[in-house]
Amino acid sequence: MEKVIGIDLGGTNLKSGLISRDGKLEHLHYQPAEAGKGPKQVIENLLKAIEHQLNKHDGEIRGIGIGAAGQVDFKTGVVIDPPNFPDWHEEPLGDIVREKFGLPTFVDNDANVAALAEQAFGAGRDSDNFILVTLGTGVGSGLVLNGRLFHGAAGAAGEFGHTTIQFDGPVCNCGNRGCIERYVGARWIVERAMDALPHYPESILNQRAEEGPLTPKVISETAKEGDALARRVLEEVGTFLGIALASVLNLLNLDLVIIGGGVSNAGDLLFKPVERAIRRHAMSVPAATVRVRRAQMGEHAGIIGAGQLAFEGLAKSE
Amino acid sequence: MEKVIGIDLGGTNLKSGLISRDGKLEHLHYQPAEAGKGPKQVIENLLKAIEHQLNKHDGEIRGIGIGAAGQVDFKTGVVIDPPNFPDWHEEPLGDIVREKFGLPTFVDNDANVAALAEQAFGAGRDSDNFILVTLGTGVGSGLVLNGRLFHGAAGAAGEFGHTTIQFDGPVCNCGNRGCIERYVGARWIVERAMDALPHYPESILNQRAEEGPLTPKVISETAKEGDALARRVLEEVGTFLGIALASVLNLLNLDLVIIGGGVSNAGDLLFKPVERAIRRHAMSVPAATVRVRRAQMGEHAGIIGAGQLAFEGLAKSE
Repeated sequence: MEKVIGIDLGGTNLKSGLISRDGKLEHLHYQPAEAGKGPKQVIENLLKAIEHQLNKHDGEIRGIGIGAAGQVDFKTGVVIDPPNFPDWHEEPLGDIVREKFGLPTFVDNDANVAALAEQAFGAGRDSDNFILVTLGTGVGSGLVLNGRLFHGAAGAAGEFGHTTIQFDGPVCNCGNRGCIERYVGARWIVERAMDALPHYPESILNQRAEEGPLTPKVISETAKEGDALARRVLEEVGTFLGIALASVLNLLNLDLVIIGGGVSNAGDLLFKPVERAIRRHAMSVPAATVRVRRAQMGEHAGIIGAGQLAFEGLAKSE
Repeated sequence: MEKVIGIDLGGTNLKSGLISRDGKLEHLHYQPAEAGKGPKQVIENLLKAIEHQLNKHDGEIRGIGIGAAGQVDFKTGVVIDPPNFPDWHEEPLGDIVREKFGLPTFVDNDANVAALAEQAFGAGRDSDNFILVTLGTGVGSGLVLNGRLFHGAAGAAGEFGHTTIQFDGPVCNCGNRGCIERYVGARWIVERAMDALPHYPESILNQRAEEGPLTPKVISETAKEGDALARRVLEEVGTFLGIALASVLNLLNLDLVIIGGGVSNAGDLLFKPVERAIRRHAMSVPAATVRVRRAQMGEHAGIIGAGQLAFEGLAKSE
């Protein structure tokens, strides 16, 4: 059976695996990316990971797909300024891998390949027009329009996290004010809870905060246990997300919003407020067209999506 | 030479003409739409306008294109809830016209066909990824993505006017708060000038306001004459537009923004603030990718775009 190598290159881990056409992942392999040691080391580690997969499974591998943090010129495979990769400016990952192994190699942004995975095997199987929003340290996103991943004019499309919802709001990492990421990025979710703690002396989050730093995961778990403060925080996060999504839906009339990442495991405690805010803030047709779902692909979305990227690239070049 | 009939159906005027493949408009014909008399009368007027064009030019006409106010199901040609058309809910314009004249008929939203006209013959000829924003009573828009008009999942895409820029801002016609239309729609541009008049006793706008109601056109003319208040108003309008566009550009990485409508004839007095605000509020790659241009097709964009809609529809069905 035909297979490709799928690679998820993040600042911490370099994950690889073999992917079959039906999205099955085998031989999952983790190694440190060692981003702190500079691009040369990262690239060496990447080539080692590919060798590892090839050595075990030579003969049946048709190509390589890579989902990388940062901005990716998907036409050339150049990876530009990935956050948390010191000294990395522009590295032609695609060419380097192709030259070394002589295999067709395809590179795209990590949020984009995650959207590909959801489209092919996950929550987006029945949609041709959706956005995948991943809630983490930042707010990433990938857009599928008319059934295809949308890259925009220069490959940089998909920065939903930097949608302005309050033009005189607090300053975001990107330099703009009032971006949605500044309201629902992990750090800001936690800050929202910490600021409210004194007003909720009975909240379980007081205990949790003494045990260790709060995280969005802890907050969503605590919300599931019924904690009022944790639920209020998720309600606010969902409302802000819905406001930002309403602008996107008015513009693009998508029929699906997929939400993934740490805080999304709160389920309806997050999704109901998102849906309510969309209905309140979007126009009638876009609001009626859209559904909101949780991402289904989990932590291996990046590897499986990278595999899908390779299969789609191979199909196009045939 | 092959021709089609192009029709621009607005609340006030029903404009028709013959369009050739190169976008040339002949036999321009205006008649009142008589929207106030209800859909039956409007449809009768529409059929009369088509007859008028057919009688003069039978034999060379291959199809009919209609750009209509309101939301249009472009697949079926049904026109839904056009603003300022009393008693109009859903009218199957496409079917009615096809049945009456036996000619291939294509219907789309007026902002969408204007974007088609700019793409084929105007400011968008060298772009595959742009937004046309028309500033009038409302803020309309049409999106061209990957070289094709983008409709979204249910045909309602393109409501850039209802992008939230301030989630607790003033209430918009659509029910949401802080939409860009609530800041740069004609009424709000004029209100902005009127509110500031007392602080600018030497502004020419004081005289103009005595002569008759201010309009965005008067404000942009006065700005060209050097009036400080009028220029301040355009500066503010441009800044708000740039903030809303920054969100769109971060999401879609377009390489072109085309701005049309009354206030756009202020030229650089509007466009420079738009560009400055985009550079300040958008991320580096989207900001570097985009140019801002004035719409080129003028008042006949609707008819010519409707003609282009018909030619593209005919080409697809061949």
